[in-house]
This record gives sequence, C-alpha cells and structure tokens, in this order.
Amino acid sequence: MISVVLIGSGNVANHLISAFAKSDSVDVIQVFARNPETVSQHIDTAKIISSYSEIAVADLYIVSVSDNAVTEVSQNLPFSNKLVVHTSGTVAMTDLNSENRRGVFYPLQTFSKSKEVDFKGIPFCLETEDESDYKLLEKVAKSISDKVFNIHSEQRKALHVAAVFVNNFVNHLYQIGDTICIENNIPFEILYPLIRETAAKINSLSPKEAQTGPAVRNDTQTINTHLSFLSDSTQKEIYKILTKSIIDNGKKL
Amino acid sequence: MISVVLIGSGNVANHLISAFAKSDSVDVIQVFARNPETVSQHIDTAKIISSYSEIAVADLYIVSVSDNAVTEVSQNLPFSNKLVVHTSGTVAMTDLNSENRRGVFYPLQTFSKSKEVDFKGIPFCLETEDESDYKLLEKVAKSISDKVFNIHSEQRKALHVAAVFVNNFVNHLYQIGDTICIENNIPFEILYPLIRETAAKINSLSPKEAQTGPAVRNDTQTINTHLSFLSDSTQKEIYKILTKSIIDNGKKL
Repeated sequence: MISVVLIGSGNVANHLISAFAKSDSVDVIQVFARNPETVSQHIDTAKIISSYSEIAVADLYIVSVSDNAVTEVSQNLPFSNKLVVHTSGTVAMTDLNSENRRGVFYPLQTFSKSKEVDFKGIPFCLETEDESDYKLLEKVAKSISDKVFNIHSEQRKALHVAAVFVNNFVNHLYQIGDTICIENNIPFEILYPLIRETAAKINSLSPKEAQTGPAVRNDTQTINTHLSFLSDSTQKEIYKILTKSIIDNGKKL
Repeated sequence: MISVVLIGSGNVANHLISAFAKSDSVDVIQVFARNPETVSQHIDTAKIISSYSEIAVADLYIVSVSDNAVTEVSQNLPFSNKLVVHTSGTVAMTDLNSENRRGVFYPLQTFSKSKEVDFKGIPFCLETEDESDYKLLEKVAKSISDKVFNIHSEQRKALHVAAVFVNNFVNHLYQIGDTICIENNIPFEILYPLIRETAAKINSLSPKEAQTGPAVRNDTQTINTHLSFLSDSTQKEIYKILTKSIIDNGKKL
C-alpha cells in the first residue's frame, strides 16, 4: 500500500479522496483541511487534521489547494526530502518548496462539486524532479485512471493554453450561438446534436480533416451574408478572424 | 400513407431514403436521380427514375440537391400546385419555383456518406408557405425524428450563422489546440475528455453559466502568460478577441 497525505479540501482534493477510497493500492492516511466539514465523507473523520504539526509520515504528499496557495502551503510542510506534488495545471513544479522532492499530479478535467467523477477516463499529467519518484507517482495515478501521461512543466504550460482554446473559448462560441438563437426566438437545443457530433467527430478524424463550413470552402457569398447578418461588432470580429484563420490554414496543406 | 417523391441522390437524400424505409406512415414512391447507381440500396431499383417526365403524382416532393441546384431543379418539375420542399439550411423557401406550394424540410446535422444516421435525435426545421401544408410536413418529419421545429426562413438564416459558430468555428479551435499539442509533443487525445465534457455540460447549464477559465475570472496574469506563449500572430489575435468578448460579456450580467 502506498500511503498518501492529501492537503486541501477543494473539488479536486475531495474527488481524489473518493477515488482513492476505491483503490486497492493507495491508502489516504490523512487529510489536512482548515475546515474539516468541507472534507469528503469518504474519509474517516479521525483522519482529518488541521495543524501542520500533526502531519504523519507518508510515501506521498498531494497538495491540492488553489493555485496561488500552492507555494505557501508547500513551505509550511514541517519535513524535508519527502515526495510532495501539486495538482495544478498552471503552477510550475519548481514553485513547490525545494526542501522536498517535487512533482506534479495534474488531472486534466473541469471538476464541479456536485457531479460524481469517474477518474478512469480522466488524463493524469505527471512530472517528478527525481526520475526515481516517477514510478511511485505513476502507480498512484494508474490506481484510479487508465490515462496517465508524463508531461513536463513546459508541456503543461502549452497544454493549458490548448485547453483554453478547446474548452473556455469553445464554450464562449456556444454562448454566441445561444445569443443568436435567443435573439431570433430559436430554441438553442436545436443545436445540441450538432455540438455533440462536432465534439465526437475528432475521435475518428483530425480537426483539420473534420473542418466543414463556408470558410474552408472559401464560400465568399455565404461569408458576406453572415457578416451582414451579424450586428454585434465583437461577434463580427470573431467571425472574421476565425474565417481568416480557417482559410489561411487550408493554404498550408 | 403519405406518398413522397425524393429528388436527388446525395448524402441527405440517401439517408432520408433509409429512414423512410423504416417509417409506417411515409412511402417513397419514386427517387429521381441522374445517376441511378448513386441511390441508396434501401429503395427498389424500379422506383428510380432519371427523367422529369416520369415523375408520378405524390403528396410531397422533397428536393434534396446541392444548394445552387435547388432553384433550377424546382423549375424543371413538370407540374404545379403541388407541395415541393427543399432540405437546405441556407436556401430561402422562396427560391423554389412559385408554380408549386413551397416549403422547407431541413435536418440540422452534418452528414457523412459512410456513417449510418439515427434520425430520431436529429432536429428537423420545417416551414411551409401555406399553413395547411404544415401538418403534412410535420407528420412526415415526426415519422423519422423526435425533434421537429417550426422555423421560418429568417430564423433558418440565423440558425445557420449560429451553427457556424458552434460547429465550424469550434472545430477550428480544436485544430488550434491540436497544433499547439503537436508543436509541444503532447498527444492531443489528452484533451478529448475535456472536449467531450465541455460539449456535454451545456445540456445541464447555459453556456454563460458553464463559462470557466482565465478570461471569465479576469485573471490578467494568466492571460498575459498565455499571450506571450503564443508565437503565431493569428492565434494571438483569436486569443485576444475571444478573451475580450468573454470579459465584456461578464459585465453584461
């Protein structure tokens, strides 16, 4: 059994507690939380601590707190030369206190409090300072997920930017679609199957192969009709730059 | 039984033939196709015609040809005062020859040749010139789909613009994500679960409620880190305008 101390009681921390509770190879021996009542019910309350001095010896310490608290929390840990990892997509591994052996244990997914999470399909991006620590971290990740990747800090930075495009920005395009529907008394749900199909398609085709629409056909007439339809200047600008990008991209074949 | 003559043998036409073959209330009595060998095997070859003079009397004529051929084909039909509809998302109803009673029978989905389509969940956008024709068209649509909407031509135009945002543009953002991953030796599949989750989320939350990321948090530090990470000027521009749009939008609460 790999012994783990979890530091934090946010969404990620609590989802990890629930997931490890079902694992045969990982034992969460303690959870550190300022507010014990925010900790998942999947852990024995006797194991919840709120003082750094009570922290037990473990194989792995997972710091799962908000991005801007990671460094400070790592500095408060009253031991050295232990394996300490954080779960953030944006914080560098080296932002952890160098007194300990450092690493990253980052599950790439958006977590909401209420929704139960099945970690099996969630990709874990792992990184360790010492190569010898990687195996242990990998074992911990594989005990709850089938998708484990070795991703160093520079790649993680790139991945976060890519995630902004395919998640945050995509959602904003959904919102623009929703706005256009509302303004024209169209139920947005008409577009749900198309949205699902667009997301599903890239499992079998690369996004470049999957590209359809007036821009990739260079259908100037339709593009102009759409531009004159849009009255919102920001929407117009977004339409223009994305169309330009699709057209330019087609030339890069 | 409602008798239907299908004109065309493209993806949509052939998928409709397969779907109607299973319907109890619709009988495709003829398919008009210039090249009979391109017609779905779900229709008796004796029913395939390639001359306008052979067209039989039917309750409904569905013109399912490429957008720029709709008008011409409708003008070639050798009868008048019959119900004639097209299946296009972009052609106006009034582009059909006015000799007949006109309508639109538009399934909102991207169709590929090979993939079998389950019409049950595909939204049909219907419109008829004469109110009295709507019922028949609705019956035909409901015989193959559970999602039938009355959408007039102006709304259909808006819907098409919205579809460009949530389908074509979203796919292009996937491609940018893919490019960033390739450039940094990251397998793009790491992002699949996030992409799926982003698309699935809007079934339970409005896109506005579902918005996450540095822009909606107005996290200037992360935004600037990302902008300096991006070296491609078009990607930078897309990042900027979408971020601005998300921030402006947050102010419109």
